[in-house]
Amino acid sequence: MYNGKGLFITMEGADGAGKSTQAALLQEYFTKKGCKVKLTREPGGTLTGEKVRKVLLDPSCAMGVRTEALLYLAVRAEHVEKIILPALEAGQVVISDRFSDSTFVYQGEGRGIDKKDIERINAFAAFNLVPDMTFLLDAPAEDISMRISGRGKQDRIELEGLFFQKMVREGFLRLAKEYPDRIVVVDAMLNVDELQQIIRHNIEEKFSFD
Amino acid sequence: MYNGKGLFITMEGADGAGKSTQAALLQEYFTKKGCKVKLTREPGGTLTGEKVRKVLLDPSCAMGVRTEALLYLAVRAEHVEKIILPALEAGQVVISDRFSDSTFVYQGEGRGIDKKDIERINAFAAFNLVPDMTFLLDAPAEDISMRISGRGKQDRIELEGLFFQKMVREGFLRLAKEYPDRIVVVDAMLNVDELQQIIRHNIEEKFSFD
Repeated sequence: MYNGKGLFITMEGADGAGKSTQAALLQEYFTKKGCKVKLTREPGGTLTGEKVRKVLLDPSCAMGVRTEALLYLAVRAEHVEKIILPALEAGQVVISDRFSDSTFVYQGEGRGIDKKDIERINAFAAFNLVPDMTFLLDAPAEDISMRISGRGKQDRIELEGLFFQKMVREGFLRLAKEYPDRIVVVDAMLNVDELQQIIRHNIEEKFSFD
Repeated sequence: MYNGKGLFITMEGADGAGKSTQAALLQEYFTKKGCKVKLTREPGGTLTGEKVRKVLLDPSCAMGVRTEALLYLAVRAEHVEKIILPALEAGQVVISDRFSDSTFVYQGEGRGIDKKDIERINAFAAFNLVPDMTFLLDAPAEDISMRISGRGKQDRIELEGLFFQKMVREGFLRLAKEYPDRIVVVDAMLNVDELQQIIRHNIEEKFSFD
């Protein structure tokens, strides 16, 4: 956990679970409270991160799973050093759409990389930063899959299909059990406003804003 | 150390020390002995590796040192999985112009990354592969620097200047002391043929070719 002045919140879950919508609403909430908020997601606008992300999402690059993990973690390192840590050190609220839990699930569980390896390399890449609070937007893989196909966009990870998405869901739920103090599981199939109310309620229960 | 049929030799030292010339002559030597030889250097011709290398050598990408290390190690992972391991498993001699020792020196010592961190992440990236024999082409930083300026080409690392190159030399020499059974230090300022004879002599002393 970061011990400076800022507050670091992450949104996790499958593509299509509604993370970016909820993150944007949460940004509104904190802004109304008078907090300065940094809403971000990897690669987070750094030049290097954007370039590496392009390589990662290029379907013609049939890379090995270790290569893929190291590239994602390079993007993580750049995002943390250039975007997240400076904002936290300035006392801001940082809301990140995906962070280390996605790496544990997609690269660890999904690609079969040893848990200890991925945790160690992630800790290095993340400068040992751990979110103060994480919301896992959870729903059955089939429901999420329907949302994605409605978007008409598929990248390399989405092409892995439903079996992969089911593993992803189970992976996130296992993490939530492992870190119950940090990760709050919420129902991604609730309507947008209802879900946001639950998220805000959880934040108010954990943190005080005076 | 790789325990399969192949033989894995690496050439290390500063840019301009003559590694690629010596590696090419060594390839001739093994070819004449009837061995199939794979002469390589990172990124090693993989599509992903080439693309990541471009990001690494782009002077406009002012990336953090952890980002840089993770990108170099992503290139390592791709090189080992796609190029080196398949050749070794086919019983070939693999000669690589730079490998893990360069990472320990340039990213570890040079950029100040913790030794344990860089060793662990490198072991992951290299699938725990360690060279059977490594030649360190050593010379004073000033002499190497003169060779480089004669080439008229400078990339991001070369721009770091002479102070950095001196640290690099010391780093390589420390590694050679740490792994005396694997790393052979040779004088990079000897003439090309003389140096090659010394390298071949060392190989014949260590390995038998019947």
